[in-house]
Amino acid sequence: FGLPLVSTNGHMGRVQHPFGGFCIKQRWNVRPSEMSKKTLNPIRAIVDGMKLTPNPEKPMIALSIGDPTVFGNMPTDDTVLQAVKEAIDSHKYNGYAPSVGYQKSREAVANFYSCPEAPLEDKDVILTSGCSQAIELAISVLCNPGDNILVPRPGFSLYKTLAVSMGIQVKHYNLLPEKSWEIDLQHLESLIDDKTACLIVNNPSNPCGSVFSREHQHKILSVASRNCIPILADEIYGDMVFPGCDFQPLAPLSSDVPILSCGGLAKRWLVPGWRMGWILIHDRNDIFGTGIREGLVKLSQRILGPCTVVQGALESILNDTPPEFYQGTISFLKSNSEICFSELSTVPGLNPVMPSGAMYIMVRIEMEHFPDFQNDVEFTERLVTEQSVFCLPATAFEYPNFFRIVVTVPEEMMIEACIRIREFCARHYRPRSQDSHELDQ
Amino acid sequence: FGLPLVSTNGHMGRVQHPFGGFCIKQRWNVRPSEMSKKTLNPIRAIVDGMKLTPNPEKPMIALSIGDPTVFGNMPTDDTVLQAVKEAIDSHKYNGYAPSVGYQKSREAVANFYSCPEAPLEDKDVILTSGCSQAIELAISVLCNPGDNILVPRPGFSLYKTLAVSMGIQVKHYNLLPEKSWEIDLQHLESLIDDKTACLIVNNPSNPCGSVFSREHQHKILSVASRNCIPILADEIYGDMVFPGCDFQPLAPLSSDVPILSCGGLAKRWLVPGWRMGWILIHDRNDIFGTGIREGLVKLSQRILGPCTVVQGALESILNDTPPEFYQGTISFLKSNSEICFSELSTVPGLNPVMPSGAMYIMVRIEMEHFPDFQNDVEFTERLVTEQSVFCLPATAFEYPNFFRIVVTVPEEMMIEACIRIREFCARHYRPRSQDSHELDQ
Ligand SMILES: Cc1ncc(COP(=O)(O)O)c(C=O)c1O
Ligand SMILES: Cc1ncc(COP(=O)(O)O)c(C=O)c1O
Repeated sequence: FGLPLVSTNGHMGRVQHPFGGFCIKQRWNVRPSEMSKKTLNPIRAIVDGMKLTPNPEKPMIALSIGDPTVFGNMPTDDTVLQAVKEAIDSHKYNGYAPSVGYQKSREAVANFYSCPEAPLEDKDVILTSGCSQAIELAISVLCNPGDNILVPRPGFSLYKTLAVSMGIQVKHYNLLPEKSWEIDLQHLESLIDDKTACLIVNNPSNPCGSVFSREHQHKILSVASRNCIPILADEIYGDMVFPGCDFQPLAPLSSDVPILSCGGLAKRWLVPGWRMGWILIHDRNDIFGTGIREGLVKLSQRILGPCTVVQGALESILNDTPPEFYQGTISFLKSNSEICFSELSTVPGLNPVMPSGAMYIMVRIEMEHFPDFQNDVEFTERLVTEQSVFCLPATAFEYPNFFRIVVTVPEEMMIEACIRIREFCARHYRPRSQDSHELDQ
Repeated sequence: FGLPLVSTNGHMGRVQHPFGGFCIKQRWNVRPSEMSKKTLNPIRAIVDGMKLTPNPEKPMIALSIGDPTVFGNMPTDDTVLQAVKEAIDSHKYNGYAPSVGYQKSREAVANFYSCPEAPLEDKDVILTSGCSQAIELAISVLCNPGDNILVPRPGFSLYKTLAVSMGIQVKHYNLLPEKSWEIDLQHLESLIDDKTACLIVNNPSNPCGSVFSREHQHKILSVASRNCIPILADEIYGDMVFPGCDFQPLAPLSSDVPILSCGGLAKRWLVPGWRMGWILIHDRNDIFGTGIREGLVKLSQRILGPCTVVQGALESILNDTPPEFYQGTISFLKSNSEICFSELSTVPGLNPVMPSGAMYIMVRIEMEHFPDFQNDVEFTERLVTEQSVFCLPATAFEYPNFFRIVVTVPEEMMIEACIRIREFCARHYRPRSQDSHELDQ
C-alpha cells in the first residue's frame, strides 16, 4: 500500500485489517469521563494541597476526621456487634435482598422513626449504602441537569460534589453564626427560581454542630411550602444533641412539604464503615406520588442496596441498643465540646461557636489579628507545622476564616490540643493598630 | 389586593409573601428525574408484565433467580462466615475505610489475582459495593454521554440499564449458540466507530454459562487492540468452570489492551448479599495512565466503598477458604447442568446448549413447533400457569426464543422441573406441516 511506516510509541503500528489488507492502527486515547472529572471533593482538593508536616517534637493530634472510631475511645455498643454476629450465624442474610432492602429491615427503620404526625411504613423506607448513597439517590431522583439545589454554607461538601458531577447547579444559602447558625431565610428565599429542584437542610449540622429550634424549622418549611420546593433533610446526626436541647426531625412539622429524610447508622451507632443508610419518604399530601417512589426504586437497582448481614442486624440494633449507650456518647461529646469551647473562647483572636449537637465546633479566626496568615488554610497548615494539631480549614465547607474541630477525640487530647492552639495563637496574635490606638487614648 | 380566591386542591392557596403582600402560591410539581426514568431494568419490566399464577396443584419451582443461596442447598463455607465474625470481634473495622477500600484488603485481592503475565498491586484494586458498582464505576469513568459501548447479546441486562441511564448508546454484538456462544467477531468489529468507548466481555457468561477458550480470547483482544478500545471484563463467574475446562482471565493474555476486570464475592463465595465487589486495573502499557485511575478514585468517593467488616474479612476469605469448597460448588453445578441438559435435549422442540461454567443453561425453543405461544415470554408464562415452573424468558437478555435455567436448585427440584417441562412441551408440541409432509413422502 506504500503507506509510510509510522514510528511508534507502542500505541501505533501497521496491522492487518480483519477483512484483508493493512491499515494504520488508531492511536490509544482513553480519557477519564467528564463526569469523573467533575466529581470533585473539596476536602481532598484542599487537604492534598496543604503542606502537612507535623512538628517532630510533638505527637500529631488530628482534630480533622469526622470518624468517631479512629481513637478507639468511642466503641459502638456490644448489642450492635452481637446483632451482626447473630445475623451471620442465622445463615439467613447471605443472598440478595430486594434492592431497596429487606422488608423486615425497612419495617424496623420505619417503626423506629414513625410518629403520629409523620407515620412511616416499610414502603416509605429505602435502605442505601451509607447516608452518602441516600443523598446521591435523593438528588438523582429530584433533579435534572440544569436544575439547581440550595445547600447550606457552611455545609457538608458531598452535596456539591454530587450535584456538580450531575450537571446540577449549586446555590449556597447562608447560615448565621451569630444566630447559632440558623438559616438566613431571606437569603435562602432570594435564591429560589423556577429551576430550583430541591432544598437541602442539614440538621444537626456538619460542620456547625448546631441544632435548629422547632420554630426555626417551621419557618424553613414555610419557605419551602410557599415556593413548592421539596426538601432533602440530611438528619444523619439526628438525636445526637446535648441534654437540654431537643432534636426535632423536620418531617413531622409539615403536612404539605414532601421530604426525603436521609440518615443511617454511621454516627449515632458509631459504625460509619458499615455503610448502612436510609431514605425516609415523607409525603403525606401525595406530592411525590408514585413517580418519585418508583424513581427511587429504579435507582436502587443500579447497585442493589447495602450489605445484607448489616440489614439482618438492623432490627436488633435499633430496638435493643440500650439508652445508656446513646446517653454516654452524647455526654462525652457535650463535655468535650464544653472543654474546647471554654478553652478557645479565652484565646485572643479566636471565636468558637458553642454547638448543641453532632460532633463539631466551628471556630472563627479573627484574621485581622493574624497577619502572618492569608487565610484559614494557611492558619491551619502552620498549626500543623508548629504544633502538630490538624483542624480542617472551613474553606473546605465554603466558609473561609473559620476552622472546624472534631470533638470525638479523647479528653486529654482535646485539652492538649487546646493548649497548643492557645500557644500558637499567642505567638502569632497582633493587636490591630486601631485597637492599640484605642488603648492609647 | 382583590385577587380571586383560588379553590385549592391542597397545593394552591393565597399565602403571605415574605416581603409583605400576597401572592398566588405556585403549584407543587415534583417529577422524577429523567435519569431515574431512564434507569430501566428489562428483567423487572418483563417479569412484572407477566401473569405468573402457578398451578395450585403443583408446588412452584423457580429456576429464574440468579441467587445461589435461595434454596439453602448451597451454603457458603464456614471459613467465610468465621472471617466476618473475627473482623467484628477485632473492633478494627467499624470506622471509615479509604473510599477505594483498606490497603490490606486491596492487597489481598491483588495477591489473589496477580500472575506473572499480569501482576497486580494494591493500587490496582478498587473495592466496590458489589460487582454491580464495579461495572457502574468502570462505565462511568470510561464513557461520556453520546459515546457507545459494545455489549453481548444475549447478555446481562445491567450493562444496558446503566449505560442508557447515563446517555450512553448500547450496541449489541452477537454471541453464536452454535459455536458455544463465542462472539461473532466480525459482527463485533463492524459495530465499532469513533464513538465506541468500551467493549464489555462477560466470561464465564450470564445467561449462557459459556466459557471462552484462550484462542477465542486472543481474537477478542486483537479486535480491541487494533481498534484501540479498552475492555471491561466482567469476570464475576471467574473460576466457576466445570472440570476439564479452564477459566482463563482476559488480562494476562494481552500486553497492550487496557482492561478493567470486574469481580466480587457474590458468586464463587456464594454471598451475593454482602455486596463486595472489585475492579482490577490492568494497564501494563500505561494507556489508562493516571487519568482513569484518578477518575475511579474520585468516583469511589461518592458513596465511600463497601462494608468494612466484609473488607476486614477479605484476606482470610480469599486465602483460607478450602479448595474443597470451590470444588464442591462446581461439581454440584456441573452435575445439575448435565441432568438438565440431558433431560431437555430429548424433549422435542427444545434445544439446550450445554454450559461449561457459571450457573445457567440457555434453552432454545423451536417456536415453530409451539404455535400456542407467540414468543418465549408467553411460553414461560404458560409454563408457570400449567406446571408451576418459572424460567426467565431470554427476551430479558435481548435474545428471544430462548429461556434461561438457573442450575443452583436442589437436584430433586431440577429433575422434577425437567419432567414438568417435558410434559408441558409434549402437550403443546406440534410437528410442522412440512415435517409431516416429509414423513408422508
Ligand atoms: C452531614 C453529613 N451527611 C452525610 C454524611 C455521610 O454519612 P455516611 O458515612 O453514612 O455516608 C456525613 C458524614 O460525615 C455527614 O457529615
Ligand atoms: C454477569 C454478571 N455481572 C455482574 C453481576 C452483579 O454482581 P453483584 O451481585 O456482585 O453486584 C451479576 C449478577 O448476577 C452477573 O450475572
